[in-house]
Amino acid sequence: LVLRVIGVVRSGRANRADTPVQAALNRAEEAVLEVDPLYAEALDGLSGFDFAWLISWLGERGAPGPTPALRQVPFLLRREPREIGVFATRGPRRVNPLGLSLVQVVEVDGNRVRFAGVDLVDGTPIVDIKPYVSRFDRPDRDVRCGWLDGVEVPDGATPSSLDAAGPDSRPG
Amino acid sequence: LVLRVIGVVRSGRANRADTPVQAALNRAEEAVLEVDPLYAEALDGLSGFDFAWLISWLGERGAPGPTPALRQVPFLLRREPREIGVFATRGPRRVNPLGLSLVQVVEVDGNRVRFAGVDLVDGTPIVDIKPYVSRFDRPDRDVRCGWLDGVEVPDGATPSSLDAAGPDSRPG
Repeated sequence: LVLRVIGVVRSGRANRADTPVQAALNRAEEAVLEVDPLYAEALDGLSGFDFAWLISWLGERGAPGPTPALRQVPFLLRREPREIGVFATRGPRRVNPLGLSLVQVVEVDGNRVRFAGVDLVDGTPIVDIKPYVSRFDRPDRDVRCGWLDGVEVPDGATPSSLDAAGPDSRPG
Repeated sequence: LVLRVIGVVRSGRANRADTPVQAALNRAEEAVLEVDPLYAEALDGLSGFDFAWLISWLGERGAPGPTPALRQVPFLLRREPREIGVFATRGPRRVNPLGLSLVQVVEVDGNRVRFAGVDLVDGTPIVDIKPYVSRFDRPDRDVRCGWLDGVEVPDGATPSSLDAAGPDSRPG
């Protein structure tokens, strides 16, 4: 299965360690998705939606590398630490390095989508954009969210801030 | 960018025309995701989540085919009809044929995930599973949903039911 790159994110974030781990934890920051002009027409109608999903590619370009560890310690569990299967985490080192970011659509101008909610580093390739549809994308009730229900999820949390918060890095 | 198939859906739906267009419109029906045993370990922890995202591959296997039309009439607008850019629709004929389905996790047993909410035909390849996390995946307010705000979205709607409802198919 071969994917095309449909656009590239232009954000103020240069490396993943200092980039918030989820768009929802960094709602105010803005960035731009530059869609390949070849596909600009496909944005028609997107500005009517307040939110959209960006499906991103978080790995190297080209053929798949080696499979990552199937159980990993999520950034948010670095304090414990506790391993979780990667299909039960939102971490970037996955069997297929796809990211799913819920962003606020601020403005669509030609092939440029300005959005708020940044968890992607500058240059991240995007492979799909889908409108957020409440009827489709929201469970009809409050739901259990597994290991995340027991974890503090601080606004703006980045891999390095979560690492620094861990017991190992405390002085003494 | 090359994707691995991580599993295959086993559902009671044989063709897309008679399959509901969104999992949310078919919440009661169940199906099974058979994960490649190679990756079964990655499911560890998923059963603690009530809902999960399935990222599916809705196209042919192999190299990308020709780019589909960038503006299309969504199934739900067949009555009008009205064309919308594919990045503002959830339709399957996209630049990259990726699907995003929100399903209820019913049971995880070894490499099998039983789920409720079926919009995928039998044999659909899955390329990623992500847990649904309310904090990450829910806008913090009611949001505009573009052209979908003005459209009736009947439970169980399939491409053929929506076609049959169109003016062109009425007798006379």
